[in-house]
Amino acid sequence: MNQDEFRYWGHRLVDWIADYGDQVERYPVAAQVQPGDIRSQLPETAPVRGEPFQAVLRDVEAILLPGITHWQSPNFYAYFPGNNSPPSILGDLLSAGLGVQGMMWATSPACTELESLVLDWLVDMLGLPSTFLSSSQGGGVIQDSASSATLCALLAARERTTGGESNREGNPGRLTAYASNQAHSSVEKGVRIAGLGSHNLRMIDVDTNFAMRPDRLRQAILEDRDRGRRPCFVCATVGTTSSTAIDPVREIADICHEFKIWLHVDAAMAGTAALCPEFRYLHAHLERADSYCFNPHKWMFTNFDCDCMFLADRRPLIQALSILPEYLRNDASSRGTVIDYRDWQIPLGRRFRALKLWFVIRSYGIEGLQARIRLHVQLAQEFADWVRQDPRFELAAPVPLCLVCFRHRGGDAANQQLLDRLNASGRMFLSHTRLDDQLTLRMSIAQSQTQRRHVQQAWQQIQKLADTLTPADD
Amino acid sequence: MNQDEFRYWGHRLVDWIADYGDQVERYPVAAQVQPGDIRSQLPETAPVRGEPFQAVLRDVEAILLPGITHWQSPNFYAYFPGNNSPPSILGDLLSAGLGVQGMMWATSPACTELESLVLDWLVDMLGLPSTFLSSSQGGGVIQDSASSATLCALLAARERTTGGESNREGNPGRLTAYASNQAHSSVEKGVRIAGLGSHNLRMIDVDTNFAMRPDRLRQAILEDRDRGRRPCFVCATVGTTSSTAIDPVREIADICHEFKIWLHVDAAMAGTAALCPEFRYLHAHLERADSYCFNPHKWMFTNFDCDCMFLADRRPLIQALSILPEYLRNDASSRGTVIDYRDWQIPLGRRFRALKLWFVIRSYGIEGLQARIRLHVQLAQEFADWVRQDPRFELAAPVPLCLVCFRHRGGDAANQQLLDRLNASGRMFLSHTRLDDQLTLRMSIAQSQTQRRHVQQAWQQIQKLADTLTPADD
Repeated sequence: MNQDEFRYWGHRLVDWIADYGDQVERYPVAAQVQPGDIRSQLPETAPVRGEPFQAVLRDVEAILLPGITHWQSPNFYAYFPGNNSPPSILGDLLSAGLGVQGMMWATSPACTELESLVLDWLVDMLGLPSTFLSSSQGGGVIQDSASSATLCALLAARERTTGGESNREGNPGRLTAYASNQAHSSVEKGVRIAGLGSHNLRMIDVDTNFAMRPDRLRQAILEDRDRGRRPCFVCATVGTTSSTAIDPVREIADICHEFKIWLHVDAAMAGTAALCPEFRYLHAHLERADSYCFNPHKWMFTNFDCDCMFLADRRPLIQALSILPEYLRNDASSRGTVIDYRDWQIPLGRRFRALKLWFVIRSYGIEGLQARIRLHVQLAQEFADWVRQDPRFELAAPVPLCLVCFRHRGGDAANQQLLDRLNASGRMFLSHTRLDDQLTLRMSIAQSQTQRRHVQQAWQQIQKLADTLTPADD
Repeated sequence: MNQDEFRYWGHRLVDWIADYGDQVERYPVAAQVQPGDIRSQLPETAPVRGEPFQAVLRDVEAILLPGITHWQSPNFYAYFPGNNSPPSILGDLLSAGLGVQGMMWATSPACTELESLVLDWLVDMLGLPSTFLSSSQGGGVIQDSASSATLCALLAARERTTGGESNREGNPGRLTAYASNQAHSSVEKGVRIAGLGSHNLRMIDVDTNFAMRPDRLRQAILEDRDRGRRPCFVCATVGTTSSTAIDPVREIADICHEFKIWLHVDAAMAGTAALCPEFRYLHAHLERADSYCFNPHKWMFTNFDCDCMFLADRRPLIQALSILPEYLRNDASSRGTVIDYRDWQIPLGRRFRALKLWFVIRSYGIEGLQARIRLHVQLAQEFADWVRQDPRFELAAPVPLCLVCFRHRGGDAANQQLLDRLNASGRMFLSHTRLDDQLTLRMSIAQSQTQRRHVQQAWQQIQKLADTLTPADD
């Protein structure tokens, strides 16, 4: 494919994506296929000669598309969103087109400088503490995911707690970590990867709102200290995956300071809401956290992957991850006047991911982003009201933002039936969790294209299906 | 930005990227800027109102572009390449446009099935063992980078060696790992992250060709066992970063089998060459490796990030990384009939990265890819001949593929001067390493657009500059 063909097919593909965005609502939201259905339609060996791009694009439409679950559908309410947006797609396109490596300042200076700038912008936009600015001892970095941010925070904590011993000699054992029993699975994954062992992660009890109980955290830490353990890492969650529960950061920070434990705050989904002053309470007391992250690739219209991680002191992370082989030595790094983001992350290489975030912020502006966040929260509050008003249903958790956890009063079987039938209809896609040991439906109203009419139709469909069930308590 | 504006600006941006590809040769290859030069031209706070995309694109050209080091320039000879190509850019664009999550089969079945298919294709294309097929106990997965593949291999090795203990109770200590002293820095980074400690990584001596000495490996393992250590992981490199040295996989595999140690083979750069039968010797004896990886995002015209990792037995990796929270449970995963790639990697979320790889393979065909690889190797061999024929220069290492390590006979100062002046000219970009404790220039001839004329001009410029030096030994 030469540049002229690239122009031709690039224009076609842009149009295809625009059409897809316009029409995505017409497809079944969750793919209605069985394992192997897609693969069985494709040849089992690679072509010897190059094929025309037309054939490739035809297979995308005819074979792949039925196997796609449409995360960009306005009727996608499952999990948390993975939103893209027109400016974000363009930013990612330019990143692919420039094809530069941002592993060090020297390998493409603009890549590092734009990333630091945009992350500094976010400190201001989200009401984050000034210790997170790149001009301080801390700073921000784009990670691929909150999972990786959590792991990096844990590695920095391990490094700081052991004074470098864990890096040199390996885990000394006896290190313990803490998160609520509602925290994301990536905390346990990180604890395993970093060699602490999942038995040394304490899953702290939560209160009736599914938020961590600081008294139980304190108790667990004291017990571990009594048994000769070394508490090193606490992950507080601002907006859990199950139910958007918000851990009490102030009380948790008090405990972390008392016992000199690294405090990481995971606001992967909820953080974006702090763009609006009325939700900035989510970021209260972060000046007492050691690290923090949120995901623009969830709710800030920036396609995956884009997690923004901030540190109050970047040195423990860099000490944990920096290795400088001869083939990467350069003047700028040696003088110490630049940031080399390779030392802030697990991989060495890195894309120019700041472009898409910069495109999104500039295209929407702060006000444009706020308007979309407010619409989603408003729609979720309306949906929650509808649930409250229907005696067949109940809310299963508070609704601080855009996730509504609710269930039919007919018990697990009724809710499972409801979930399966809603998703099989192709008209919407919900996911589930368990709260108070009961199957609970999760209605996450935060997709870029979701409007009031979609949410209204979803509720009507849920109500209609509920009519066909025989609730246990009616 | 609505869909019509997206169409308009999408077409413009595609044209911009095509023009960039046509003209990239005209820019200074390495950015000629000082720290802060780019950032200082950009506003320190985010815009309150959205801006027209025209303004964004203008800033890309006027402000960012001078801060870009052009990895897609045909005169880029530094590091290893990070090649893109027209079909790869389109694949990444479609991935952004579809915006799906491939963390589980159920979250977008086509994403998982296409990935398994294309990785199975590569087993055939590269002469890899059939144990790496997804229909076996093993299988392939796309990681972001070889660094992450190495870490994942190490975690699987740790898990297998300790029978799950390290995951549950934390690293038991006393685990040791092995790689040559020429292995990539990611091995040490992985050893740190996984909690083994860098003092427990043995950097094995190399022979005069910079390949690992199996006798020294054996000796190190025996010494560790005598001291009560538990050897658990060996990384053999097929094509080191410094000089494309090729570790003797057969002898290393013998030792790993004897002592029941996990063998990972890192062919990040070199692996692509095995597309050509004459270079398939690179993959000899891989049927005795536990894991293997190579990077299409280096030499296979597929833009970052795209590392292909293969396992002979996927179970230890999945055991190490799998955690299934309630909110991710689904029928397909419960029945065990599908692959959930989230359990094969560090992060949870994942892009639809198989698209770009599929686009590249289908657009070029196996023959098209082979032709480009052969051209690069041919050019490197010619360049090596020119070096041999110039008495002022010497080759510093064998040239099995497309990297020429050479140096001026005038010593480190002369070579440093040569390197600095070549890169400051903007007409080419080389990097360096140290071999036999001497500063050595690395000429990596593998950029997608590099043709014979570029390499000829580069050598002429090197010769011309050499005339202006006063070599110590003349």
